[in-house]
Amino acid sequence: MHVLIIGAAGMVGRKLAARLAASGSLGGHPIEVMTLADVVAPEAPTGYAGRVVTELADLSAPGAAGRLIAARPDVIFHLAAIVSGEAELDFDKGYRINLDGTRYLFDAIREANNDEGYRPRVVFTSSIAVFGAPLPYPIPDDFHSTPLTSYGTQKAICELLLADYSRRGFFDGIGIRLPTICIRPGKPNKAASGFFSSILREPLAGQEAVLPVSEDVRHWHASPRSAVGFLVHGATIDLEKVGPRRNLSMPGLSATVGEQIEALRRVAGEKAVRLIRREPDEMIMKMVAGWAPGFEAKRAMALGFVAEKSFDEIIRVHIEDEMGGKL
Amino acid sequence: MHVLIIGAAGMVGRKLAARLAASGSLGGHPIEVMTLADVVAPEAPTGYAGRVVTELADLSAPGAAGRLIAARPDVIFHLAAIVSGEAELDFDKGYRINLDGTRYLFDAIREANNDEGYRPRVVFTSSIAVFGAPLPYPIPDDFHSTPLTSYGTQKAICELLLADYSRRGFFDGIGIRLPTICIRPGKPNKAASGFFSSILREPLAGQEAVLPVSEDVRHWHASPRSAVGFLVHGATIDLEKVGPRRNLSMPGLSATVGEQIEALRRVAGEKAVRLIRREPDEMIMKMVAGWAPGFEAKRAMALGFVAEKSFDEIIRVHIEDEMGGKL
Repeated sequence: MHVLIIGAAGMVGRKLAARLAASGSLGGHPIEVMTLADVVAPEAPTGYAGRVVTELADLSAPGAAGRLIAARPDVIFHLAAIVSGEAELDFDKGYRINLDGTRYLFDAIREANNDEGYRPRVVFTSSIAVFGAPLPYPIPDDFHSTPLTSYGTQKAICELLLADYSRRGFFDGIGIRLPTICIRPGKPNKAASGFFSSILREPLAGQEAVLPVSEDVRHWHASPRSAVGFLVHGATIDLEKVGPRRNLSMPGLSATVGEQIEALRRVAGEKAVRLIRREPDEMIMKMVAGWAPGFEAKRAMALGFVAEKSFDEIIRVHIEDEMGGKL
Repeated sequence: MHVLIIGAAGMVGRKLAARLAASGSLGGHPIEVMTLADVVAPEAPTGYAGRVVTELADLSAPGAAGRLIAARPDVIFHLAAIVSGEAELDFDKGYRINLDGTRYLFDAIREANNDEGYRPRVVFTSSIAVFGAPLPYPIPDDFHSTPLTSYGTQKAICELLLADYSRRGFFDGIGIRLPTICIRPGKPNKAASGFFSSILREPLAGQEAVLPVSEDVRHWHASPRSAVGFLVHGATIDLEKVGPRRNLSMPGLSATVGEQIEALRRVAGEKAVRLIRREPDEMIMKMVAGWAPGFEAKRAMALGFVAEKSFDEIIRVHIEDEMGGKL
């Protein structure tokens, strides 16, 4: 089996490649080749017996999509995207990469399908940003997509394309609407959502973190490990059971910031909690107010997608996967 | 005021042009110029004091969108589309015209907005085809778009673009999800939905009509006159009141085929009803089973969009507008 990961240099892409490398198989089939593509050189995962091909490729460049699928990968994970903030600042770049790039990929597959019956599994990472305020809590599976960012719009459009191209039989697609990934490993970044991770990650490492919103802010989370699990399950699930509605809101954990902090207290003690410094930020508070508080995710759960059940668990996953298992 | 109608040679486009010509104004502003564009030459409406410009234009051709908005129309009605059946048969043509054509238009406006602050009202005709079975009855305003045709997918994507471009301030857009138009004037056509109109239109004219489905089939209707009313209201409504969710399911009349026939009996008598010949068609029955039975349309009604309240009324509109007021 040949697996292609587009966007393999990103946080989720790297973890996905590492997981596939470690297991060496997908849905019971050995992975002989893994192609890792991104605009910056992806690192090859360690401990993998198969062949790794790395590709420097910008999906929005002419011909790039055709080259990426030239070896006819059996499974394509499409994770490449300009992030929300950048897509909002640079309108052209966001549409070019998040919409046109995805469409080029889908159309390259369609051409190969027309020519030779090529029909890969395509796992597309969408986002809860396809939903825009005002939002109910919990958000039901049949709630409409009315995004309030260009990023969310681009993801919602790609979801529609994925469903139509799948219905037409050009490929077997599934769209995975990821919750906010928490705890995101690495350094603090300037994303408005960054504090959800940093108020846990920094104190766990003995460092100070800034909380810009009030403790009653409720949001929707899953660990990086769960995100990778969603993608792997999406790559192997029986799509007959999914039916024509191919874009699924993933399960996750709905929690307030206060609940996050209580979990931190239970896992790492009062000393860790004291490292959280309150510094209200009007702009971030306003943005976060429109974000999704939580989903029913009934369909995804019935289809076997699994996420964490408590924030204690999310914190423990971080300690295991990022801190060598100990505080 | 300068009004541009793209798709002016179609049934709704012609009626819209006629209505604007008759009133000579829109939202209290006199219409000095009307540009009528289509891929076939649109006819100029009669009895109009202003200037009519007709444009032969294919929106999906390079540069066509830029030329169409060169005179900076204040209001743009975008009705041009490949119909559902054709978009399903010809994948490329459907995406090229229904999606790319619309995007070219939106981007041409965006460029003019960037360059000189041009910001027209854009009224886009969408469709209830953005919804796909299984559907509840009535369909609430916040129900998700999961189309089961390429046409519906293209319309749903254009809705998302319209909302994002409006949010960005490139233009002031509103998307109008039209019900099935009934009674469609003219000759019977091969559209699967054609019978909803022909079982009334033909008997009203003393001719036989074929009913391919059972009488308990429920669907969602509005007259051509109402459709034009929706577009005119969409062109003049205060968009502050609409907010960021710019695509609205229009009000209409939910009726079974049996109820349509009862209305025909009341308006035109048993003699007319006897002209309906039952000829069950498995393929049409299967298609129609997935169509929208009806909508709540609460938001659109609260915003002042108005449709017929009974099928008797829909039939009377046809008699008035298409048969000179008498049977």
